[in-house]
Amino acid sequence: MATTAGKVFLVGAGPGDPELLTVKAVRLIESADVVVYDRLIGDGVLDLIKPGTARLYVGKETGRHTIPQAQINELLATAASSGRRVVRLKGGDPQIFGRVGEEVEHLLSRGIECEIVPGVTAASGCAAELSIPLTHRGLATGVRFVTGHGCDDRPLDLDWNGLADPTTTLAVYMGLERIGEVAARLAEAGLDPATPAIAIASGTTAARRQCVARLAELPRKVAEAGLRSPVLLVIGKVVRLARVPAEVPVERVPAGLVQHA
Amino acid sequence: MATTAGKVFLVGAGPGDPELLTVKAVRLIESADVVVYDRLIGDGVLDLIKPGTARLYVGKETGRHTIPQAQINELLATAASSGRRVVRLKGGDPQIFGRVGEEVEHLLSRGIECEIVPGVTAASGCAAELSIPLTHRGLATGVRFVTGHGCDDRPLDLDWNGLADPTTTLAVYMGLERIGEVAARLAEAGLDPATPAIAIASGTTAARRQCVARLAELPRKVAEAGLRSPVLLVIGKVVRLARVPAEVPVERVPAGLVQHA
Repeated sequence: MATTAGKVFLVGAGPGDPELLTVKAVRLIESADVVVYDRLIGDGVLDLIKPGTARLYVGKETGRHTIPQAQINELLATAASSGRRVVRLKGGDPQIFGRVGEEVEHLLSRGIECEIVPGVTAASGCAAELSIPLTHRGLATGVRFVTGHGCDDRPLDLDWNGLADPTTTLAVYMGLERIGEVAARLAEAGLDPATPAIAIASGTTAARRQCVARLAELPRKVAEAGLRSPVLLVIGKVVRLARVPAEVPVERVPAGLVQHA
Repeated sequence: MATTAGKVFLVGAGPGDPELLTVKAVRLIESADVVVYDRLIGDGVLDLIKPGTARLYVGKETGRHTIPQAQINELLATAASSGRRVVRLKGGDPQIFGRVGEEVEHLLSRGIECEIVPGVTAASGCAAELSIPLTHRGLATGVRFVTGHGCDDRPLDLDWNGLADPTTTLAVYMGLERIGEVAARLAEAGLDPATPAIAIASGTTAARRQCVARLAELPRKVAEAGLRSPVLLVIGKVVRLARVPAEVPVERVPAGLVQHA
């Protein structure tokens, strides 16, 4: 009968590999009363949930519809009732394309305490595995993250002229669906079509696959290789430093573009 | 007498709080033969090093000189001789302003195996603690990271026109020394001087302090508050969502700019 509000921890689950969870994330998952998660949270991460903990899946239903954000917000508020500790797991870092701000705003408006727990974002995790520094002296003075997730059939609402910057590494999250549009618009905006680029599917998991190519050729190579979501694109000179496992068929790797691990 | 080369793990130590280390980082630190670290690695992280493990500090000597990168590269190669497992700890994520690429290139040129282990980058850690999403619907379509670390007295070599983008959150690492230059150049390039901005010193540690202000006023407020390095700047509309602890003197927080936690 208690009506005490609980607390919601909005926790980054990292890029996939359960060892890339933070110590804090593990502690919170193991001590949660309720865990709310969506797709892109790997089995290895979910295995940490103690038996008896309530699990709520809020990913796509039967592969088609996404639960509306308002409904997830309300579900989190309800889950936190009666003093329960809720862990809301989000892939990567919740503050980067994780819509965490919307959930925090809703919870605060309902008087429910909440805390964001950062995680290793997908770009860091995927790039590390292939030995790609995101910044590097002489190759990239900075790095930026955008999302390739667009609304319906409308073009992506991105500042292509700003993004076509040869001195900055560009990471495109959810980069598969619009990969052709990304490559074409960057080239139109003046980025060298020979800029090294990589598409990494299911990074930091056993299912990882990747394609390295010059930007102009990346969409074709990714289609040929049949990469599937989630795909992160990394575009920029730092991709030259990638160490791609030797099992990748050599014909997919332009000569001199990458070192073999 | 073994001459087998060991392995160097280039490990992100996260933003400061030892609980924000990854599980993998903890495992590697605990099983290392040698740990090489610089400043910005907190005591709580160093406490994980087992007794008997060699520790090498490569930070600033007597607060003045930095050990040249070439010397650190060579030290890592030497440490990895005789089959030793070396952990090279870097603050935050080693791929973001951590010069990890230079160390990897050197080690590979010497035939020494190495692996990058990603970490929670400072921007994620510092922003999470203050409940600032780095991307947010209607406020920021992406996020970018640059460094305020410059060479000598020369102006920062950054594309200010590209950075003056009201739809992207900008995080400036090592943002203290050049804070005046950053604020002035962004405003000259057209970014609204009233853009919300925050300077966070020693984020995710007990020593954390922060100043919130409109961009134009941030340098003065930071100077008045006497913030000390390391300082991360976050500039953009998302800073409106910051929840700053109530112990911050109210006169430092412009009315209506932030919510109180």
